[in-house]
Amino acid sequence: MKRKGILIVVSGFSGAGKGTLMKELLKRYDNYALSVSMTTRAPREGEVDGESYFFVDKETFERTIEEDGLIEYASYCGNYYGTPRKYVEKCLQDGRDVILEIEIQGALKVKEKFPEALLLFVMPPSAAELKRRLEGRGTESPEVIRERLVRASEEAEGIENYEYLIINDDLDECVREMNDIINAARRNPVRNRHLIADMRSELDAVVKGE
Amino acid sequence: MKRKGILIVVSGFSGAGKGTLMKELLKRYDNYALSVSMTTRAPREGEVDGESYFFVDKETFERTIEEDGLIEYASYCGNYYGTPRKYVEKCLQDGRDVILEIEIQGALKVKEKFPEALLLFVMPPSAAELKRRLEGRGTESPEVIRERLVRASEEAEGIENYEYLIINDDLDECVREMNDIINAARRNPVRNRHLIADMRSELDAVVKGE
Repeated sequence: MKRKGILIVVSGFSGAGKGTLMKELLKRYDNYALSVSMTTRAPREGEVDGESYFFVDKETFERTIEEDGLIEYASYCGNYYGTPRKYVEKCLQDGRDVILEIEIQGALKVKEKFPEALLLFVMPPSAAELKRRLEGRGTESPEVIRERLVRASEEAEGIENYEYLIINDDLDECVREMNDIINAARRNPVRNRHLIADMRSELDAVVKGE
Repeated sequence: MKRKGILIVVSGFSGAGKGTLMKELLKRYDNYALSVSMTTRAPREGEVDGESYFFVDKETFERTIEEDGLIEYASYCGNYYGTPRKYVEKCLQDGRDVILEIEIQGALKVKEKFPEALLLFVMPPSAAELKRRLEGRGTESPEVIRERLVRASEEAEGIENYEYLIINDDLDECVREMNDIINAARRNPVRNRHLIADMRSELDAVVKGE
């Protein structure tokens, strides 16, 4: 029997290195697939449709919402962003583990719809290092730093909703640990409902005298 | 800074191989310690005080209860059984991971007192295998099999309270996986309260203007 994939939601502090981490994870292990978001915002230079995003118009996006074609969506600065359901479900059925990179509000919506989703939160190894990373190299404007801090502060409120912290100190080690953590998470009861149900009905049958 | 140990509670179906599994885990990795229970029952042939159990009289046991010296205790067939607090806390402080083998009622009591305790449930790989193991080799009396089944049925009710299932198919692989799972569990937010609190106060301080 083919194993069903896990839906993996990755959030984390700005500057924690989520992007690099996931790129490396996909390069090193072939069971992962990255979800591509759908958006109504215009493509930027170098962005490829179907890779960076699925670029669609507002009508298409809203029709997709109505058809329940998105796992979660939100709007920022007048544009929609969302996670198409079809690609995710296809990957999971094929036994691949699908990674979504979204912030906490979206993560909680996904967990509500998919209780077996795995929520990971990427952070630097210490508060001092967090501060260093948020402040950047002194090249960012005070407004950008301010924005990052406020966002980080909001994200920090929700950490307890995540199943694991991914401590990004050394990239190489962190990628390996992230893969180990995902494998361990496959053994959580929430991701083994069939097995547990089978055990229970077997026990019931035997207790009742076969 | 020395890492604090994890309190690991192991339960599971009769015949799932808990004993062998833990013996092998302790042999292979040196960060684990096995908790020794206290009991008022008489030692059996070959049992060593302080190894198999701490054998004490009823007065001593009840005084230990009054002094809050037990993490959990229960009585079966007129005898007390309990987990002495002192040894467990000493090990955890020393950075060792302490394993308690107890059934579900005790496991839930431990989790209440130690929210960071890790609850593991050992089971065979399939319902068919569970049935085979519970029925034994046909040498057990019907009463013994009946007792096992009823107990297994009760234990099965509580599986969702455990953090991970330990699927014992191949012993060698299972021991390795159990160790991996315990390491992954160190990254659960409940076991990283200090780190999270530090991150939050660092963010607060920076947001408020250092």
